[in-house]
Amino acid sequence: MKKLEDYVRCIPDFPEKGIMFRDVTTVLQDADGFQMAVDAYRKMLEGVDFDVIVGAEARGFIFGAVLSYLFNKPFIPARKPGKLPCETISTEYELEYGTARIEIHKDSVKPGQKVVIIDDLIATGGTVEAIARLVKELKGEVVKIVFLMELAGLNGRDRLKGYDVDSAIVYEGK
Amino acid sequence: MKKLEDYVRCIPDFPEKGIMFRDVTTVLQDADGFQMAVDAYRKMLEGVDFDVIVGAEARGFIFGAVLSYLFNKPFIPARKPGKLPCETISTEYELEYGTARIEIHKDSVKPGQKVVIIDDLIATGGTVEAIARLVKELKGEVVKIVFLMELAGLNGRDRLKGYDVDSAIVYEGK
Repeated sequence: MKKLEDYVRCIPDFPEKGIMFRDVTTVLQDADGFQMAVDAYRKMLEGVDFDVIVGAEARGFIFGAVLSYLFNKPFIPARKPGKLPCETISTEYELEYGTARIEIHKDSVKPGQKVVIIDDLIATGGTVEAIARLVKELKGEVVKIVFLMELAGLNGRDRLKGYDVDSAIVYEGK
Repeated sequence: MKKLEDYVRCIPDFPEKGIMFRDVTTVLQDADGFQMAVDAYRKMLEGVDFDVIVGAEARGFIFGAVLSYLFNKPFIPARKPGKLPCETISTEYELEYGTARIEIHKDSVKPGQKVVIIDDLIATGGTVEAIARLVKELKGEVVKIVFLMELAGLNGRDRLKGYDVDSAIVYEGK
């Protein structure tokens, strides 16, 4: 029987030499792979007491939305600058070269809400750590952060120290 | 009882004067609104014979993924240039000022597959018409195009003539 890992396409030297790119589109474009991936997220969230899900643009929208629907919770998109039409808060995070910003609506997470953050993959953890800061700024509490895939060699968990982090598939390399 | 329309936030003069922006984030960030929106899409797809769903980056990922999961179909993301790691086909479409490109993986839609395209909103219809062209290039058949919201005053349906188009909420203006 095919395992979840078998649906992930691995592309050497993308986007640059030495990086093994883990492509989630082959999981999504297979009905069985997609169901299996959602089930893996669902298991990671079983028994977690939470109020809302925040998903990271753009691939985090895919699983974030499905899980929000299944758990009957609100879905809050964390977006690239200029995409959200109302008042936002934003923060900066580091990329390999330079920086980027991420935003959420000021009226999205309510004070005291328990928040799950979802993305498809954790590499250095920069995006999600920035989203966690935004949630805290809105006085929400990050109770869990879940990924489908983790590139353990990039030490993203170190950056997310203090959070409850879980990944369905852990790759040892980068 | 609250209707689906009541969850949509309307923002005058965004992104520019004379435009009434229809904000889907207030639908998403309310568990009831989100469930209602998904139900509306589900009704539009009832009885439709299809194989895969293609969703437009980025907001089309949200509902596209949920519907793929519920109908147990593959989900194919149509993305902005440079985001997909394998061989893609791409096409250009017109914006109010200038042009943009959209891509899908060459191995995503298979010849003969029946395709549903999902986005959250139809304005001029440019993005989705471009995606429909990509589907055809891969020899797929677009059997249905569904939106949560339609800005009828922008005549997007004219551009999608020949396709089976449906929207849950139709706004008469722009």
